Amino acid sequence: MSYDTDNIFAKILRGELPCHKVFEDDETLVFLDIMPRADGHCLVIPKTPCRNILDASEAQMTAVMRTTQKIAKALMATFDAPGVTLQQFNEAAGGQEVFHLHVHVLPRLEGDRLRPPGQMADQDVLVAQAARIGAVLAAM
Amino acid sequence: MSYDTDNIFAKILRGELPCHKVFEDDETLVFLDIMPRADGHCLVIPKTPCRNILDASEAQMTAVMRTTQKIAKALMATFDAPGVTLQQFNEAAGGQEVFHLHVHVLPRLEGDRLRPPGQMADQDVLVAQAARIGAVLAAM
Repeated sequence: MSYDTDNIFAKILRGELPCHKVFEDDETLVFLDIMPRADGHCLVIPKTPCRNILDASEAQMTAVMRTTQKIAKALMATFDAPGVTLQQFNEAAGGQEVFHLHVHVLPRLEGDRLRPPGQMADQDVLVAQAARIGAVLAAM
Repeated sequence: MSYDTDNIFAKILRGELPCHKVFEDDETLVFLDIMPRADGHCLVIPKTPCRNILDASEAQMTAVMRTTQKIAKALMATFDAPGVTLQQFNEAAGGQEVFHLHVHVLPRLEGDRLRPPGQMADQDVLVAQAARIGAVLAAM
């Protein structure tokens, strides 16, 4: 399968669409999912083209996992969450909707349940959450 | 959080418990989940101690993801599956039940639903599936 340069994460990377940015380094970008299944639900993506785990280079996977670990710890601290769930979907049958590699990082509370998919968050809430996570990351 | 050397995956690694092995290399081991949520549901683990993503070294994450990619492709070929879902759980609140790092690799069919957790598979079916996946891996 090929890489579609018009997917929405490619547009976010090119600055053609906005995002609630949480973190970036040379190789990865992290932003809040606008349809969060938990408070602080983040997406970690490589900055270079990659459809999903099937065509990811080792360098892309390593960079994404390094950032995922960092974000997992920051989300646990920000939301006082004792656990984290990672999800990663490949191809439509695997649950993928945007065809640029992304890892879902979901902070989890004891006994919580993930919200159903597809519910848009309040943008002001996302702005505030991104700022809180950013402050925790800056202090780490 | 510390590493419990008596977790069941540590026992599998030491040969004290059996598993339906699918693949191994110097750094990782892959076996079938005995309570599969999809046919071919595999677990990829590092051979060295690691509780979960929070304490994983970069070398452990890289090795686990390299093997995860390989297994994802092998499962798609074996089960004629057009997609793959990855799940990875950290700490009890995050869904973790065995405290040795593991990535769930779930081959997915169009429109399928994951089975509910906790349903033990028929052991003969797992033996046959492990052989089929192994044959595909050997030919890759």
